[in-house]
Amino acid sequence: MTDPFVVVGGDAAGLSAASKARREAPDREVVVFERGQWVSYAHCGEPYFVKGEVEKLEDLLSLSPEEVEDRGIDLRREHEVVGVNVDAETVGVQGPNGQFEQPYSDLLVATGARAVTEPIEGHDLDAALPMHGLDCAAALRALLLDPDADHLAAVGGESYVDRELVERYGAMQAPETVAIVGGGYVGVEMAEAFGAHDLDVHLFQRPEHVLESFGEPVAERVEATLREHGVALHLGEEVARLEGNADGRVSSLTCSDGTTLSCELALVGIGVRPNTALLADTPIELGASGAVAVDEYGQTNVDGVYAAGDCAEAIHAVSGEPEWVPLGLTANRAGRAVGTTVARTTYDDATDRDGHGGDGGDGGGRSLAPADREPIGDVAGTAVTKAFDMECGRAGITDHAEAREYGFDPVTETVTTRSRSGYYPGAAETVVSLTADRDSERLLGGTIAGTDRAAIRIDTVATALEAEMTVGDLERTDLAYAPPFSPVWDPILTAAKVLRGTLSD
Amino acid sequence: MTDPFVVVGGDAAGLSAASKARREAPDREVVVFERGQWVSYAHCGEPYFVKGEVEKLEDLLSLSPEEVEDRGIDLRREHEVVGVNVDAETVGVQGPNGQFEQPYSDLLVATGARAVTEPIEGHDLDAALPMHGLDCAAALRALLLDPDADHLAAVGGESYVDRELVERYGAMQAPETVAIVGGGYVGVEMAEAFGAHDLDVHLFQRPEHVLESFGEPVAERVEATLREHGVALHLGEEVARLEGNADGRVSSLTCSDGTTLSCELALVGIGVRPNTALLADTPIELGASGAVAVDEYGQTNVDGVYAAGDCAEAIHAVSGEPEWVPLGLTANRAGRAVGTTVARTTYDDATDRDGHGGDGGDGGGRSLAPADREPIGDVAGTAVTKAFDMECGRAGITDHAEAREYGFDPVTETVTTRSRSGYYPGAAETVVSLTADRDSERLLGGTIAGTDRAAIRIDTVATALEAEMTVGDLERTDLAYAPPFSPVWDPILTAAKVLRGTLSD
Repeated sequence: MTDPFVVVGGDAAGLSAASKARREAPDREVVVFERGQWVSYAHCGEPYFVKGEVEKLEDLLSLSPEEVEDRGIDLRREHEVVGVNVDAETVGVQGPNGQFEQPYSDLLVATGARAVTEPIEGHDLDAALPMHGLDCAAALRALLLDPDADHLAAVGGESYVDRELVERYGAMQAPETVAIVGGGYVGVEMAEAFGAHDLDVHLFQRPEHVLESFGEPVAERVEATLREHGVALHLGEEVARLEGNADGRVSSLTCSDGTTLSCELALVGIGVRPNTALLADTPIELGASGAVAVDEYGQTNVDGVYAAGDCAEAIHAVSGEPEWVPLGLTANRAGRAVGTTVARTTYDDATDRDGHGGDGGDGGGRSLAPADREPIGDVAGTAVTKAFDMECGRAGITDHAEAREYGFDPVTETVTTRSRSGYYPGAAETVVSLTADRDSERLLGGTIAGTDRAAIRIDTVATALEAEMTVGDLERTDLAYAPPFSPVWDPILTAAKVLRGTLSD
Repeated sequence: MTDPFVVVGGDAAGLSAASKARREAPDREVVVFERGQWVSYAHCGEPYFVKGEVEKLEDLLSLSPEEVEDRGIDLRREHEVVGVNVDAETVGVQGPNGQFEQPYSDLLVATGARAVTEPIEGHDLDAALPMHGLDCAAALRALLLDPDADHLAAVGGESYVDRELVERYGAMQAPETVAIVGGGYVGVEMAEAFGAHDLDVHLFQRPEHVLESFGEPVAERVEATLREHGVALHLGEEVARLEGNADGRVSSLTCSDGTTLSCELALVGIGVRPNTALLADTPIELGASGAVAVDEYGQTNVDGVYAAGDCAEAIHAVSGEPEWVPLGLTANRAGRAVGTTVARTTYDDATDRDGHGGDGGDGGGRSLAPADREPIGDVAGTAVTKAFDMECGRAGITDHAEAREYGFDPVTETVTTRSRSGYYPGAAETVVSLTADRDSERLLGGTIAGTDRAAIRIDTVATALEAEMTVGDLERTDLAYAPPFSPVWDPILTAAKVLRGTLSD
């Protein structure tokens, strides 16, 4: 085994890269360092695990550690990479048996993101939790169970889970009232999850609407749905602090305006930030977003050093500028592309480099034909979520201030139409907003909400954005029509028709 | 009112054009001749009316005749256009009060298509019906009701329906066994419709699979679903003739190989052809398909004469060649575009022309800036349908022989994947085929089948085809991911990934 490809982080981006590199270059040594116990797990499924629709923690694993190793990947869990030396081409690793230096021929930084809990005072109280990672999800699920239950058996994942955490939360009295701090995806999805456990659910959102990036027409439908399901919405309310009881467990919440709520559980979902502390003293550059800056192949400014997933930027299909959009497909695709590129890289001085870490910053004799580099792809900011039965989606740039920053003159039209032919049973109200640039008529973005196959329709917008279509191009696209699935003019076509009408006025 | 815009045919294309022209040019005279009683109705909803999911015939009308007239359109039902004189710029019209000549400044031929029933011998027996038009649908629904029911009240549409037909079919004993001849959309949708009435349903298809244009992977799923619901499939069976009883009603069916079936109802759905007989002795040219040849603005080879809808060709987005794809969106969009173009057309000699039909083939003083012409849009051959809960879709060119005719070297890959994250409840098997050109890697077409939001996903393929994306472009498109709606790699992305792998081998 030669030319180690070293990956920092064993989740979506890291293991996609490692798997692809091993498959394409079977002689290549591939080492993955993961500081925790969990690898290759589905963040996005955590709300549905807490809800109970997903039964066991291990159901959320795409690959078990054993399956990773069966792929020939040298997976080291509980190994934290604590330093990167790009001159020596080594990383410093802290493992259960002490610290060591690991040489690399290529390096992928896939350290992900972390949940933000500050500046909420009291966020470190018991039963004040973010929703980030399987241990959080396990603690929440255990807390919702009867204190007498076998919590470890019930939540699953026995081989990897933080047993002490699960047992501690399992022993607590289940909450009756939960405060969700933050109305982004996680907040909205967790409102549904807690609702399924008959909790009294309160959602606090500092802006005036939930799901800010989806825009007002979508937010209004989601808010109506949340309220119909008994979720108390506190919009425009800034949470200042959480207070605890004598046991150190959350007992109440106080807003900046003095409003208080008694609650025995607080879920803090006010955002995520890229994990880049590891790179602080290295020449590896971050972008304006704070995430790692990369080129269209996922490479950082340092030759042979890549970044992918929730810690890295990517080029936005609409603005053409780097953006930080930490989502699952982006991580998987970028990881896979980096694995492909690395597998195609060759080294002139393989014997010299084998096992002892390069020759001091001359690029390691790395050789790669430009055509062999695999693009990581653009992001279009495509996102979908749901609140109970209200599905919603967004893609591109829909915020006018943001559009103007990139030099566009944005115009938006919103239509409310039906999901099927009006006479066909099950036709549901569907709201679509499309935004375009006034002069070029280029499509900039769109949003959608509705209860009947609404979310997945955003893929049409995402595809049109990738292709840099104008609104007219989209209006003339031959989308599907049959009464059970769409009116003759699909909701997106109707929106395009109305928007083009406005643009040509 | 000046410069008459004359429309032949009062369904989707004709009334879209008429409505748009009136709205954009309110001073313009717009006359629509419809030979029947019905206008602006939804062909595609007829199977669901027979099934009973759509209650009344009038539910299938987009606009009533009164609503059409309220738009300022001079609608003449029971008026058949029997001749076109492009030199005089007049049409000959046969109405209830005799024949007359109607001058036009612009003419739209929107005569639609007709159901083919030959060469099936006995297709004119009672209870041997095509599924084409609301009167057919009404007769079928009446036949399925108890002979003692109030058939006219039950089927609805009292003001327009062929009462004699409904009463005659209503009086017949309801069938126990139905033979569907032809396994295209109509045949498959009608199998579901008849199944809902507990009929013994037999479907005969001359080729080896139903839904030929959807390809084998889709057809196999649809066939399995039809069989699960008790439909007897007779694949590879050519129906030779229908035999009648003493009353002249269908009593049995005989195949070319001698197989026979006793049945009291036969639905003949073996295809449609464009209605172009009207143009036989005119210089207006037909295309190779037999439908009217038009340019990208829907104009025929004769200045000021347009054709749109099921009687006209359109340019295919993939081949760039004229094709005949008679579907609802195409008709609506082309009609609307023609209406826009006509509304922007001006006439130098309006007083001279007003009401008496032009000045003899010099183009009528017609004047239209090139930029004012509205494109009718390409077709991508996008189609969706369902059999019970099995949804399916297709777009583009998927047949290899057809692809080769257009100079492509087609490669197809088929994947079977899931509709949602594997751990999320309701994830359903979804089969996707994508076809691309080997050298250019351009996407040529795709098909999909599955029970969970499968059909609507074909819109992603349709949009990619319109944008002339390569398989790699599609693979890197930022499609939506959230566990309730899609795996991380959407089924279409997975298919693109596999196909690109094959192309680069």
